[in-house]
Amino acid sequence: MEKVYQFIEEHKEKYLEWLIELCRQPSVAAQNRGIEETVVLVETHLKKLTDKVERIPTSGNPILYGEIHTGKTKTLSFYNHYDVQPEEPVELWDSPPFSPEIREGRLYARGVADNKGTLMSRICAVHAYQSVYGELPLNLKFIIEGEEEIGSPHLEEFTSQHPDKLWADANIWENGFKSIDGRLQITLGCKGMLYVELHAHGANTDLHSAKAAIVENPAWRLVWALATLKNEREEILIDGFYDRVLPLTEEERRLTEEMDYQEAKELEQLGLKQYVNGLSGFALKEKLIFQPTCTICGIEAGYTGEGSKTVLPSTAKVKLDFRLVSEQDPAEILVLLRQHLDKHGFADIEIVPLKGQHAAVTPIDDPLVQKVVGSANAFFEQKPQVIRSQAGTGPMYNLCQKFGIPSLGFGVGHAASHNHAPNESIYVDDYIEGIKFAALVLHEFPK
Amino acid sequence: MEKVYQFIEEHKEKYLEWLIELCRQPSVAAQNRGIEETVVLVETHLKKLTDKVERIPTSGNPILYGEIHTGKTKTLSFYNHYDVQPEEPVELWDSPPFSPEIREGRLYARGVADNKGTLMSRICAVHAYQSVYGELPLNLKFIIEGEEEIGSPHLEEFTSQHPDKLWADANIWENGFKSIDGRLQITLGCKGMLYVELHAHGANTDLHSAKAAIVENPAWRLVWALATLKNEREEILIDGFYDRVLPLTEEERRLTEEMDYQEAKELEQLGLKQYVNGLSGFALKEKLIFQPTCTICGIEAGYTGEGSKTVLPSTAKVKLDFRLVSEQDPAEILVLLRQHLDKHGFADIEIVPLKGQHAAVTPIDDPLVQKVVGSANAFFEQKPQVIRSQAGTGPMYNLCQKFGIPSLGFGVGHAASHNHAPNESIYVDDYIEGIKFAALVLHEFPK
Repeated sequence: MEKVYQFIEEHKEKYLEWLIELCRQPSVAAQNRGIEETVVLVETHLKKLTDKVERIPTSGNPILYGEIHTGKTKTLSFYNHYDVQPEEPVELWDSPPFSPEIREGRLYARGVADNKGTLMSRICAVHAYQSVYGELPLNLKFIIEGEEEIGSPHLEEFTSQHPDKLWADANIWENGFKSIDGRLQITLGCKGMLYVELHAHGANTDLHSAKAAIVENPAWRLVWALATLKNEREEILIDGFYDRVLPLTEEERRLTEEMDYQEAKELEQLGLKQYVNGLSGFALKEKLIFQPTCTICGIEAGYTGEGSKTVLPSTAKVKLDFRLVSEQDPAEILVLLRQHLDKHGFADIEIVPLKGQHAAVTPIDDPLVQKVVGSANAFFEQKPQVIRSQAGTGPMYNLCQKFGIPSLGFGVGHAASHNHAPNESIYVDDYIEGIKFAALVLHEFPK
Repeated sequence: MEKVYQFIEEHKEKYLEWLIELCRQPSVAAQNRGIEETVVLVETHLKKLTDKVERIPTSGNPILYGEIHTGKTKTLSFYNHYDVQPEEPVELWDSPPFSPEIREGRLYARGVADNKGTLMSRICAVHAYQSVYGELPLNLKFIIEGEEEIGSPHLEEFTSQHPDKLWADANIWENGFKSIDGRLQITLGCKGMLYVELHAHGANTDLHSAKAAIVENPAWRLVWALATLKNEREEILIDGFYDRVLPLTEEERRLTEEMDYQEAKELEQLGLKQYVNGLSGFALKEKLIFQPTCTICGIEAGYTGEGSKTVLPSTAKVKLDFRLVSEQDPAEILVLLRQHLDKHGFADIEIVPLKGQHAAVTPIDDPLVQKVVGSANAFFEQKPQVIRSQAGTGPMYNLCQKFGIPSLGFGVGHAASHNHAPNESIYVDDYIEGIKFAALVLHEFPK
């Protein structure tokens, strides 16, 4: 592998330029912005690696599929996405989100950590391996979708219509991080999700707030309804919500105990005095990895500009995400939420479901896990952290576990990457190192 | 007065044009927009009536003062304002808010009902009276401020520095309406107000919502805090909040019983099935006129655009107005609110006070009330409605009652005017009629 590493070192300016060019191109699925341009760009890179590149149409954004068929025994697939989160609030970025900029060793851009950096590191790894050895030691598939950040609503069209393209001995998931102390994280699963909007309606027009004495205020309706959903101890109060949350196995308990979480550093970085409920240690990690959530991602009603406008709003809206774990089913949670609102007198509040995903997990004794952990032990100075599940969500279940394909994730992000938030960034050194490690995994997996 | 009415009829196109020109000029105090231009415009009109026009500087927007000194015995003052509410949400207007447009007998524009229509009707009334009779039968003062819609924060500079300009036998307040059945409303007071923002703070940056499992969400903090302020029966739960709310006197009870409120029509107009708590009749009117409120005027946190962005917001903000009645003191309510939040575990939530006003009321047996009601009985086909207090708020106490000056309000608006909201409008016929009635009041008051 030394030759490959050397090749990567010699070409690192070029590989960095490829990433910068990709990050300069907006690709916001939620706003349908820059999709076609991004597809063309990623397609161009895939075509450097193989002549089997397909643009697979869906009812939404196309999926890019690239296959490198070597005739070898083993087949690995990479799952990634070319779309990114919206960049708002733009005013909190120190440099424009789609004008990538390097400051103090970090490359800042929307999507660079989630997950354009990791996507490009894999393309570069294959490029380097092929350049040095001519051919990969396995068959490889790239599955790159364009709607991950809006909940992969059309990925199931692909999985049901193209089981052949989906099939692999194992999958490497889209992304990953280094922890604050610089250890590579290898994640074996991800949480599920139910994302909804709740809408409350009042009069058919905004009114002078003097009328609020007698006309119902939808913002108050929404506040009262929300207050029934979760209490100040962070307990979600929907009947049956926790029924399918399983207790931790011995193995999960051990992994969680071993998992390093630099609380003090993170708290300082975030400007916080403590975590919710004053949690720390095992209980903190357990809540992050194994507990479901109910989060207000956005709320809006009435006048929110400068000054003291006295208005009674006619509508109010909240965006809620529930991160789901274990056997929780998004469709069932949606029903429980409707029942909960009705039972508490909020039948008037409308639920608009936006997305649903099952949680997913790969067993720790799977050969894939053993091989990747072994490669990481050999490659990095510090031992990797094996994490039972991401705290985040992805369509892993629909693409892998549902078909018996094991999957795990690692990538070039960092605990301080600010995914989904202003000033998203990765370390340039992590990117170059990540290209080398991806090449090593390609080399070791078929052994 | 017939000659004056005839003059007004002959000049109604011109008087309408004056109003349209004034409404075309934005004057949004909350956003400091168009103030100077509006001052110049109103000044020009006042100078047609008198050569004693002064622009009185304050720490905020200037106050326009116009005095017509005739040497007669009685002195009346008009209080009005040249500023308007912000026009947001602009997308809900059927015509641009600052491009006045007449449709089906109604003139649509931001500020036309609150209170540029009434202001201009008084300027026109004086213009017509002087044109016909040469001189007014009393001394008259115009006090026209430019910050009413943001709570008149600098009006007290004027009242303390210019008691001479303030002095009058009686004051006519800025504005008024016709009820849905077309009866002129004469209001003898207004509610007070405390307007605050509550700010909740979380981490120092927006985060991926996966972190919401362990990082406090300021939007949830705000929801929980709000839910402690008012319950679903519309009861405000702050200790001591109602202590200075007085029970209705016999006279107030009688006025309220006599007050016509077209519930069914209004409910239909607003697209509602019922008022809060299912109230109707006396209880409804009593709540509107005599009860304090706590209103969410605006709330905002996190991502509120298209799609399902999964973000944990770093801040959350709500705008609250409390309409105050009787002897409630805004400064005291602010203290009670702070104590309430502290007591319920929300010491972390910041209160930003934006404005405070005392409630105000003029006794029904005051000669001013008797004369204006008498004029209205003679002028309008239907008897006026005397209303104990506006449901809304103004600086009446600071300008009048505090100095022993009686005050009442009437004007050219309508129950369906949509003050402070999209598609604000008045009836053109009400405007012309309002000019005539204002001229009659000038004529009758000194008798």
